[in-house]
Amino acid sequence: MALLVQKFGGTSVADPDRIRDVADHVVRCRKRGDQVVLVVSAMGKETDELIRLAEAVSDTKPGREMDMLITGGERKACALLSMALHDRGVEADSFTGSQAGFVTDTAHRNAKILDVKPQRIQDAIDAGRVPVVGGSQGVSTDHDVTFFGRGGSDTTAVALAHAIGADSCELYTDVPGVFTTDPRVVDEARRMSTISFDELLEMTASGCPKPAMRSVELARTFGVQLHVRSAFSWAPGTLVTQEDSMEAAIISAVTHDTSEAKMTVSGVSDRPGVAASLFRTLADAEINVDMIVQNVSAAGVTDISFTVPHEQVEQASGVVDQISESIGSAGVIIDSDIARVSLVGAGMKTNPGVAATMFETFADVGINIEMISTSAIRISCVVREELAEGAVASLHSAFQLEMDPEDRRPL
Amino acid sequence: MALLVQKFGGTSVADPDRIRDVADHVVRCRKRGDQVVLVVSAMGKETDELIRLAEAVSDTKPGREMDMLITGGERKACALLSMALHDRGVEADSFTGSQAGFVTDTAHRNAKILDVKPQRIQDAIDAGRVPVVGGSQGVSTDHDVTFFGRGGSDTTAVALAHAIGADSCELYTDVPGVFTTDPRVVDEARRMSTISFDELLEMTASGCPKPAMRSVELARTFGVQLHVRSAFSWAPGTLVTQEDSMEAAIISAVTHDTSEAKMTVSGVSDRPGVAASLFRTLADAEINVDMIVQNVSAAGVTDISFTVPHEQVEQASGVVDQISESIGSAGVIIDSDIARVSLVGAGMKTNPGVAATMFETFADVGINIEMISTSAIRISCVVREELAEGAVASLHSAFQLEMDPEDRRPL
Repeated sequence: MALLVQKFGGTSVADPDRIRDVADHVVRCRKRGDQVVLVVSAMGKETDELIRLAEAVSDTKPGREMDMLITGGERKACALLSMALHDRGVEADSFTGSQAGFVTDTAHRNAKILDVKPQRIQDAIDAGRVPVVGGSQGVSTDHDVTFFGRGGSDTTAVALAHAIGADSCELYTDVPGVFTTDPRVVDEARRMSTISFDELLEMTASGCPKPAMRSVELARTFGVQLHVRSAFSWAPGTLVTQEDSMEAAIISAVTHDTSEAKMTVSGVSDRPGVAASLFRTLADAEINVDMIVQNVSAAGVTDISFTVPHEQVEQASGVVDQISESIGSAGVIIDSDIARVSLVGAGMKTNPGVAATMFETFADVGINIEMISTSAIRISCVVREELAEGAVASLHSAFQLEMDPEDRRPL
Repeated sequence: MALLVQKFGGTSVADPDRIRDVADHVVRCRKRGDQVVLVVSAMGKETDELIRLAEAVSDTKPGREMDMLITGGERKACALLSMALHDRGVEADSFTGSQAGFVTDTAHRNAKILDVKPQRIQDAIDAGRVPVVGGSQGVSTDHDVTFFGRGGSDTTAVALAHAIGADSCELYTDVPGVFTTDPRVVDEARRMSTISFDELLEMTASGCPKPAMRSVELARTFGVQLHVRSAFSWAPGTLVTQEDSMEAAIISAVTHDTSEAKMTVSGVSDRPGVAASLFRTLADAEINVDMIVQNVSAAGVTDISFTVPHEQVEQASGVVDQISESIGSAGVIIDSDIARVSLVGAGMKTNPGVAATMFETFADVGINIEMISTSAIRISCVVREELAEGAVASLHSAFQLEMDPEDRRPL
């Protein structure tokens, strides 16, 4: 008998049939003897639809009002799921983020959790009831409704699992687990039965869309066991743990990300403090700068390139223009047609040959590398956007990710 | 410069265009120097759509969960209207019923207001901001979300107007005011410029759909001035006041109501306590009994007839069956095809000829009267449902309601 937090994503509760399927699954878990706490996202495309409505009435779309609007989606889903459970003889209660005890800061649209006070959830568990919590929402220290951002339901689930001391946090989605690469791009993509937090974190940071990176970070910090699995097959998925991968794979996965553009600030003075000044100014404007590469200096000037989300390019460009004089830049070059292809694996830190194999693989298929950045367990290359899927497939094959790790040839 | 509570019904905020129109109107009121507090219903058919979803996942539809679900409609509308106001340079804040200070009992689906603590609304007003409150909702003494029932936004508006000491409560709807009868039935129906609380109360109790009866009761109790007006033409509508009608009309309006069925409990013992026992039992089952008529006794037994909403007929029938032995009844006859046609007017109490004229009018057009009940300012007749519209038209004409009161011939 375990205490499980089970989170159901938007596709898992997209329509009444799906909601009834989820309720049936919860009944099965209860029959097995498990106590469950549910977290739900908004149904299907509801969040998009609410944003579309907001855009139809407002250009300004103030954060406080957007959060009030959008959190209604999860609230609707949790009330409907509770009803479906009642019909199956399971006493269930829906809770908004506020009722579930999620206290956040006042950063609307992207609020951070300050505290979870799960008293009402604990009371419901103790009474043998099933709490059904609206995901991605809380109440701010100003007593306003807040939204954690897209994908925030994963964060709700992990934070709640930690707060109530759950044995596991199950993230139900529309895919059967975490794959060695995007199965829509590479047919041979393989589901991993386990993965470490560090590897999953690098994967989500470099294009793997689920689970949300923030929830993986939180789970890693608090040691909450994650289980990424399917709300369609209900089969076991991928277990995420503190330990290094049980599969001992030197390379775990290939990811790609086309959500960013490359900005190059050219002709920057090569003196101390210039990069600091540039990135501090961008950070103050809340621009989400990711991969940063500085070229070698020539004649006292250098180029600094970085990636930013497409939707922040214009704002970032304005910010750089404002400080161009003080950092001595000659101008900003924006390139929107890029993709970042990343190789993730715990074994990388002890095997310098991985990067070489990666670059050779690209060379063999004629793909030019425009930027490179590495971490202890990840190597990312920026390539032309239209070459990204081919790059992913060639890496997946070169590193034999379609095979079980023990069957692969040594790197 | 006045402090106004303005309530916008579902058709007034049915789509983004309508929401922008409402925002434009609020800007005009602010320019005129008025301070406004807004209350909004759910957009268009949203409440019906939410109920349809609930029915698709649940037969039991527990009240707590239904309230969580349905109140999301008003919340969505108030967030969107706040955004539209921001776009027009008006600082506005949306508030749920709970945030606006509406404390209710725990009777889900039909919660009663226990207290209004409008501190956040008052703070917003003092700061020169426009509060936009989700209608028909509050938080129960058990800290759960509650819904006041359909039409509850009018009640929210009136209670809030009283709590903050507003000068007037404007109820914006899709008709230009209160009419002498239903304009869809009688072409000559005339908008009244004023009406007394007592008359409007009788009208709403006997089939006039707007404003919601409960809100009129509340306004009458607290002396809140109501103004029923159009959110499409924005023209002045009907003013509802404590005073008798300024127009001094002996007859104000004709209403009709097809939402009820007639139940007759036949062969009941004609002894003290029998009627009390019957209606106490029905009341305990929360059956909304309306018009009650007891026929004269013959041979120690009598018939008791009353009307109940169609949706409660089955339940009421079961309740009566349970006590049939103790009240000595011979059976229950249910008649669903009835309508109640009512004549409302302050002058009725001093003019016994009104009832006679009403009955003669029905006789002239061959309409049989099946039940009669009267109050000081209302006479209601139950007739066959298919004759109701003809009955309304004949009364409207017989009492010359299409004319200004001073131009009518004396009764």
